[in-house]
Amino acid sequence: MKHLHFSDTHIKGGFWKYYSDMVRNVTAKAVYDRFWETGRFDAFRCDWEEGMKNRPHRFWDSDVAKWIEGIAYLSEIKREPEFEKIADETIELIEKNQYENGYFNSYYIRIEPDNIFKNRDGHELYTTGHLIEAAIAYDKATGKDKLLKCMIKNVDHIYKVFVEDKSAAFNTPGHQEIELALLKLYDYTKYEKALSLAQYFIENRGKFENDKVSHNDQTMIPLRELKEVDGHCVRAGYLFAAMAKLANLTHDEKLFKVCDNLFNDITEKKMSITGGIGYHRFKNFAEAFSYAYDLPNLNAYNETCASIALALFAHEMLEAKIDSKYADIIELINFNGFISGVSLSGDEFFYSNPLEIDLKKHYRDREFQGPSQRVKVFDCSCCPPNVVRMLSSIQRFMYSQDENVVYCHQFADSETKLNIKGINAVLIQKTDYPYSGKIDFTVKGADIKLKIRIPYWCTEFEGTKENGYITVDLKKGESFTLNLPMNIHFIEANPNVQDNSGRYALMRGPVVYCMEGIDNGENLRDITILENGESEIIKDEYFPAPVILIDGERRENVNSLYKIKDNKRIKIKAKFIPYLGYENRGDTDMIIWTQVK
Amino acid sequence: MKHLHFSDTHIKGGFWKYYSDMVRNVTAKAVYDRFWETGRFDAFRCDWEEGMKNRPHRFWDSDVAKWIEGIAYLSEIKREPEFEKIADETIELIEKNQYENGYFNSYYIRIEPDNIFKNRDGHELYTTGHLIEAAIAYDKATGKDKLLKCMIKNVDHIYKVFVEDKSAAFNTPGHQEIELALLKLYDYTKYEKALSLAQYFIENRGKFENDKVSHNDQTMIPLRELKEVDGHCVRAGYLFAAMAKLANLTHDEKLFKVCDNLFNDITEKKMSITGGIGYHRFKNFAEAFSYAYDLPNLNAYNETCASIALALFAHEMLEAKIDSKYADIIELINFNGFISGVSLSGDEFFYSNPLEIDLKKHYRDREFQGPSQRVKVFDCSCCPPNVVRMLSSIQRFMYSQDENVVYCHQFADSETKLNIKGINAVLIQKTDYPYSGKIDFTVKGADIKLKIRIPYWCTEFEGTKENGYITVDLKKGESFTLNLPMNIHFIEANPNVQDNSGRYALMRGPVVYCMEGIDNGENLRDITILENGESEIIKDEYFPAPVILIDGERRENVNSLYKIKDNKRIKIKAKFIPYLGYENRGDTDMIIWTQVK
Repeated sequence: MKHLHFSDTHIKGGFWKYYSDMVRNVTAKAVYDRFWETGRFDAFRCDWEEGMKNRPHRFWDSDVAKWIEGIAYLSEIKREPEFEKIADETIELIEKNQYENGYFNSYYIRIEPDNIFKNRDGHELYTTGHLIEAAIAYDKATGKDKLLKCMIKNVDHIYKVFVEDKSAAFNTPGHQEIELALLKLYDYTKYEKALSLAQYFIENRGKFENDKVSHNDQTMIPLRELKEVDGHCVRAGYLFAAMAKLANLTHDEKLFKVCDNLFNDITEKKMSITGGIGYHRFKNFAEAFSYAYDLPNLNAYNETCASIALALFAHEMLEAKIDSKYADIIELINFNGFISGVSLSGDEFFYSNPLEIDLKKHYRDREFQGPSQRVKVFDCSCCPPNVVRMLSSIQRFMYSQDENVVYCHQFADSETKLNIKGINAVLIQKTDYPYSGKIDFTVKGADIKLKIRIPYWCTEFEGTKENGYITVDLKKGESFTLNLPMNIHFIEANPNVQDNSGRYALMRGPVVYCMEGIDNGENLRDITILENGESEIIKDEYFPAPVILIDGERRENVNSLYKIKDNKRIKIKAKFIPYLGYENRGDTDMIIWTQVK
Repeated sequence: MKHLHFSDTHIKGGFWKYYSDMVRNVTAKAVYDRFWETGRFDAFRCDWEEGMKNRPHRFWDSDVAKWIEGIAYLSEIKREPEFEKIADETIELIEKNQYENGYFNSYYIRIEPDNIFKNRDGHELYTTGHLIEAAIAYDKATGKDKLLKCMIKNVDHIYKVFVEDKSAAFNTPGHQEIELALLKLYDYTKYEKALSLAQYFIENRGKFENDKVSHNDQTMIPLRELKEVDGHCVRAGYLFAAMAKLANLTHDEKLFKVCDNLFNDITEKKMSITGGIGYHRFKNFAEAFSYAYDLPNLNAYNETCASIALALFAHEMLEAKIDSKYADIIELINFNGFISGVSLSGDEFFYSNPLEIDLKKHYRDREFQGPSQRVKVFDCSCCPPNVVRMLSSIQRFMYSQDENVVYCHQFADSETKLNIKGINAVLIQKTDYPYSGKIDFTVKGADIKLKIRIPYWCTEFEGTKENGYITVDLKKGESFTLNLPMNIHFIEANPNVQDNSGRYALMRGPVVYCMEGIDNGENLRDITILENGESEIIKDEYFPAPVILIDGERRENVNSLYKIKDNKRIKIKAKFIPYLGYENRGDTDMIIWTQVK
């Protein structure tokens, strides 16, 4: 069973068309512009000198790599000559400046050549990982293999340094990612050394005393002994995705079980309702998982990259084993904690995605920057190009295939090319999901057995679920209509999530909702939603998903600081917007977890 | 109208007898022992040398001064020869080591003689203030005037340096307190220079550019222009108490109005329900007021000294103007946020008094020290001796008198000596308050007009309130019984207090209640109290105020992190203890603000 390649599916309309058009028309260029301005492309010249502006940074290569990967995906669907020209020039520079021995990192080559592979926190293997992924994507999309050759040469060098000579000052990556890239490289080229190197990094992580620098990077115990997730959540997600992919490639059920336990630990104990992960400030453990059920709202970290990494992890798990729990998390992330990281205009980005904003507290604690100020490029600008590569290939999450069995994991108005035992076929989804839950499937050209995920939030459906999927036999030319009831649900968190006790989140389908001050006034925490009140689903062109009006109440303003409880309330219509569109209309309060009665 | 001196009232039983006995039998000695061990008494020898243990600290003098003040109050009721001996020896050392010019601070004399009055943050005027208060108390209690003479000489010196020569590196105290002490000195001795110096410090604060070091100490604008409280809450409280006393002494209604506005700003916008004030961590503004209605529970600061300072402020306001709002706040503080700062055993102390403890978060954020570990003496040990001087004179808050009119502000089982137009009389209160709200007043020896405060929490009473007091004419030998209904009240905070939206505090009479994990299990935030459930008031000898059992409910434990809301609940009996006794039984979760339905 393999996932279908994203380019087999064309998004035709609806929610994901909005974002697919946006990444092609706005986001890719916006990220390029900011990267160009800040010297990230120039850094590949390796000619920066003291006194010049835009001093290179050790992980800038990865920013550009993710951008190249993203525009490769765009080009694979429809060529983008201008973007390719930029990529070609950059790749020329990589080829030109790559060391004879295969080493490449534009920062270390120019700024710290004496410190190559001496600093475990140097991010060199991380940047290489992203360059490998860019190389694969660019080769596949354009047929241009120059970067791929460079990176294979680079892999040979890394293999020699780490596996054969053990001449680096450390043994395993300080910032993981290369493991996943190497396995993709193996998948794409069958180059055995890539597989071996990935295995080396995964199997040896946590075994070398000198690698155990902090709890923050999953090096305290061997990975196969991990029972709980801990440490930096982005690094964890990339690493676990690689472990899952390795388990799948090598049919290693024990390793898969380790991964499954880690997946459950995240999604059942350490994940925001938006699919975000990580706590903001935790002493030395910044950007890290906290203890089980510690999910504060104002201080949620939920880096956009962390949601992406978790989606990639889930995606690898899903390829190894059909279970709707993996696809459910992907859907949750894609409609909420990932997509919230880019503005509706497509050119501004969030690094972290909190679950609540109280402007007064925000300004007290952070002083200068407003919460709506999605910065165009931040110093640590991993998220914007990550958004580019994910949005440009969002179809990757939709389908898997095993001969004539086609698994539909995600819903989007789209057409997908299938090859059913040598016969070309097309599978069409017509839907305005998540506005409605009506999805029409039509197959042309061949008979298929269609397995459709019934989302975890769906309480009514026809058919029998197996691993979370219902089965429909579709003869060529036939259609099937799935009707997912799009009710408003109030969601409660586990009683151990003390921050949300007595509070509920509003969801409709896969979309998490929030209230903003701009619509609902001050003191959002004081609003109570009436469970049996009236509600209205509204199409608001500003947002790519519906807005909800619902009956609620709040207390009157009073002067007294404390008084005896009374039950006087003012009736209100509370306006909920999809979380993915939060903080797009200027600085304002925001809340997800609300009172319900 | 003057407050009665504390020594005119003898506590005979009940709640305050518990604490009055405790301070005499345990607390005074415990604080002395810790201060002796840590070198605080030895520091007065002014002979510490590099390499010796217990390096003196610039504000240690104030710790010992408050202790001397406290044991003087104990001696005034019943002589304490052993404590007096210690005080006498210390006073000898002060006299011996005081500079010829009158200067005294044991730290600066020994450690930094070249920096006397050079550092505004040096706390020299603050320590002098407390030594002045100790001198007054010790003279009044024992007739020994040596310290008083030393301190008058010291005041002369400070007057010369600050008012006449202006030779210090700053103009007004970095840490306020001396203002109040000087006014008390004037009150006690009628020494005009003390009044002038207090006026100088108060009137010039906020006027000198070089004094404006931070927002933390009320120096940004002249005090008469202050409209909101800001900055360090202990310093603010002491300063405002002095301003109120000055307004009263000089019949300055404008200054009184300034004070009244500040009092209202604190008590109507910036005070915890326990009477605590101050936010824990606010960048450079530690231990300071936050913005209006920002009253977080886990991070409440609520230093014991801050509650004391606010009570002193209220007490000065009350002497200037009869208004029950001042006495209400004193009662709230005395039964809650002040008294919580000392353990029920009397020998351990809290510096800060949070409104909620979540052990998991506590250990994550603070790592080492458990929340129940009231430390015996902390480095900055201002609170323990402050507890000694307040508990040993707690009667000070009870009565004021204006000829034959006697105002009863506070309730305690007690006998009070009165002088009614030259005739000796006795006013007796018999009560087990706050167990019940029944208070029997009997007067002997004279006729009085008794004015009794009806507490703000009392919704039913007989008579007509004037400024919050009812009037009873009591002929000699007559009795009057006040019956305050002791109902359980659920208190709501202003809707702007976002941290408490949807939550309520349980109070009964003046006592704020809390739930602890040791009684109620994990996840206290998940408990909902039933407003119309049954409740039981229980006498538990462990606590000096009643314990309450009340019907409640909580959710069942489940495995899922998120699920659709249901209304299944488990019935429970929730146990509430008086907040004053929180965290006395080992590390445990604690909560005040709870769900109610």
